[in-house]
Amino acid sequence: MTDLLLRNVRPMGGTATDVLVVGGRIAAGPAPAGTPEEDGRGMLLLPAFVEGHTHLDKTTFHLPDWLVNEVGPRIEDKIDTEREWRARTGHDAGAASLAMAKAFLAAGTTRIRSHVDVDTSGGTTHVERVLQTREAMRGLQEIQVVAFPQSGILGRQGTESLLDAALAMGADIVGGLDPCAIERDPVKHLDVVFGLAEKHGKPVDIHLHEPGTMGAFSLDLILERTRALGMEGQVVVSHAFCLGDIPERDRDALLARMAALGVGIATTAPASRPVPLVAPCRAAGVTIFGGNDGIRDTWTPYGSPDMLERAMLIGLRNNFRRDDEVAIAFDCVSAAGAKGCGFADYGLASGARADLVLVEARSLAEAVVARPVRKLVVSGGRVVARDGALLA
Amino acid sequence: MTDLLLRNVRPMGGTATDVLVVGGRIAAGPAPAGTPEEDGRGMLLLPAFVEGHTHLDKTTFHLPDWLVNEVGPRIEDKIDTEREWRARTGHDAGAASLAMAKAFLAAGTTRIRSHVDVDTSGGTTHVERVLQTREAMRGLQEIQVVAFPQSGILGRQGTESLLDAALAMGADIVGGLDPCAIERDPVKHLDVVFGLAEKHGKPVDIHLHEPGTMGAFSLDLILERTRALGMEGQVVVSHAFCLGDIPERDRDALLARMAALGVGIATTAPASRPVPLVAPCRAAGVTIFGGNDGIRDTWTPYGSPDMLERAMLIGLRNNFRRDDEVAIAFDCVSAAGAKGCGFADYGLASGARADLVLVEARSLAEAVVARPVRKLVVSGGRVVARDGALLA
Repeated sequence: MTDLLLRNVRPMGGTATDVLVVGGRIAAGPAPAGTPEEDGRGMLLLPAFVEGHTHLDKTTFHLPDWLVNEVGPRIEDKIDTEREWRARTGHDAGAASLAMAKAFLAAGTTRIRSHVDVDTSGGTTHVERVLQTREAMRGLQEIQVVAFPQSGILGRQGTESLLDAALAMGADIVGGLDPCAIERDPVKHLDVVFGLAEKHGKPVDIHLHEPGTMGAFSLDLILERTRALGMEGQVVVSHAFCLGDIPERDRDALLARMAALGVGIATTAPASRPVPLVAPCRAAGVTIFGGNDGIRDTWTPYGSPDMLERAMLIGLRNNFRRDDEVAIAFDCVSAAGAKGCGFADYGLASGARADLVLVEARSLAEAVVARPVRKLVVSGGRVVARDGALLA
Repeated sequence: MTDLLLRNVRPMGGTATDVLVVGGRIAAGPAPAGTPEEDGRGMLLLPAFVEGHTHLDKTTFHLPDWLVNEVGPRIEDKIDTEREWRARTGHDAGAASLAMAKAFLAAGTTRIRSHVDVDTSGGTTHVERVLQTREAMRGLQEIQVVAFPQSGILGRQGTESLLDAALAMGADIVGGLDPCAIERDPVKHLDVVFGLAEKHGKPVDIHLHEPGTMGAFSLDLILERTRALGMEGQVVVSHAFCLGDIPERDRDALLARMAALGVGIATTAPASRPVPLVAPCRAAGVTIFGGNDGIRDTWTPYGSPDMLERAMLIGLRNNFRRDDEVAIAFDCVSAAGAKGCGFADYGLASGARADLVLVEARSLAEAVVARPVRKLVVSGGRVVARDGALLA
């Protein structure tokens, strides 16, 4: 049992107080004699962060050489380039995901949803390797694995069986990908995805890059199946770019259906294209939360294991300038992320798992815009990192 | 005369070499005996950065308390809130600008164009104070001061005389602001701005937030006056958001005129609204360069004296993923900034002023996306900062 007394900390930037941890959870009442203490020196206390959409297996974060990106502009270019690069280099998804997971932990993230590639080239290798990373991080960090058909299901015979195998070996969630634009047969694609979800009793998280009315049509089909299968609260749509470029009336009708069905949205808040805006989603009652997407991989050189940076980018994309708005950006990488991904026991209330971060900042907004070094990271009541570096 | 030999550095990420500085300038040939040396340890060598559009006088960067932002959504809300906050707090534009300028220098920026407020409440006080900062930084950092009518000229009697006084006391550039949307009389506004430019023989830099066809109309009037007054190469349009939301054919027609007249664009690349994209501007031959706009002021909590962060945000906004594209984002905060603002003797070539930055990065793209600490900052051949901190 891990006990800890954090003295003189300011939860979410509020008044200084002490925070007690008993048996790895936040507790009320006076500290038992002999409880180990940390002096918080008036620092800002935050709940540890949630990465709601990344690809731990894809990163080149751990490699000695910089990967020069020369990829073409279309999504198909990026998919093909990645598969070829992997075959050529023998990319090790285990080393990649473990290095990335540790970097996330050092920067204060204790819960991660990672999409992990399943395809006919690599089979279930990436899933096996990321499941090993999940085991290696158990107790320190909770990792959800999405079996993700990055190269599509319908065009590559055998992918469905591989997804089935990945779910059988422990992947938590069924992934999907652009039912119209990539798969070119939305009904068949969604039948496979929801069929696997039903068979394994697992939730769904579908990448939906499709813009405009095409994306809205795919989303409509997803919602129809969510309702028909009684999967309320079990479906996430990642990206959902279409919600950023259809008429507001149509958007709001879709958001109302998503709210009623408990369908969440994972957003990376990219600056260069229309995206679902956070405020109307929240106003409609839809849980929208943040993630990096890939980090320094063959798709993109950007991204960071620092979820405060993602909060800043969400804030910038949504023109959140007021302190109360910046707090919403932070919510997207904390409480809303936990809710959207279904991570239990989250937060700063008594009874929550003691996953905590201390930073030197005067306010929550300053923590987001300045992204100061993590002075202390606590996971399950145990100090796991100081000054941005993991402890041994 | 400042001499220096930087050993084992990789200019722009290229092959390791030595770089010699003689008399504060980059020089060719062997180092004279006794030249002081720095061991670059194979680090990436970059030309020191250029901040092409900021407001040094507005920042709260130097204040002990966090400024809670509760401002309304309209541009007029922000203008009024700022003027009222200043009157209430006795904001010190001298301390603010000096702290900000030093933070820029520590992070590797040796050239800054700062718009500085001139209005009937504060008179020319801000300009006077920032001119003091310019003097304090002379030799270390070159600061251009734009006399900027933040509250407009036409609605507040006396502003034109104040701008005239600010230019007489040493402001370098005549500012302007939204001739239609704020000033409501574009011809009269531009007559004042270009009249002052003609009288003082100084260039122009106009804030143009106006979207769509209204902004395009104002831009048209600006270009007309640039040509009529023979001010080729002497005019910058800041923001120019309209170029992001008019039809491409109309945009390209304006860009062609801007290129012919040498009219540049300063962009902050905001994520939350249409903006002029970098690639079509460059393709048309228009110099487009980057800046923060305000940093932690009453307008916004965002922004940073780290111009590599601005390069990253420009890259994200323009969907620059390839290494050769990320290099363009960097160009916006370096060579293109120097060209657009008219800062002389810029770059890494022999004869240029030795303003240099060393960072630990494997490539230029990594420097942009990872924004590593500045291991060394050199200004005019003199080492002025190490490990992100100014030397005494």
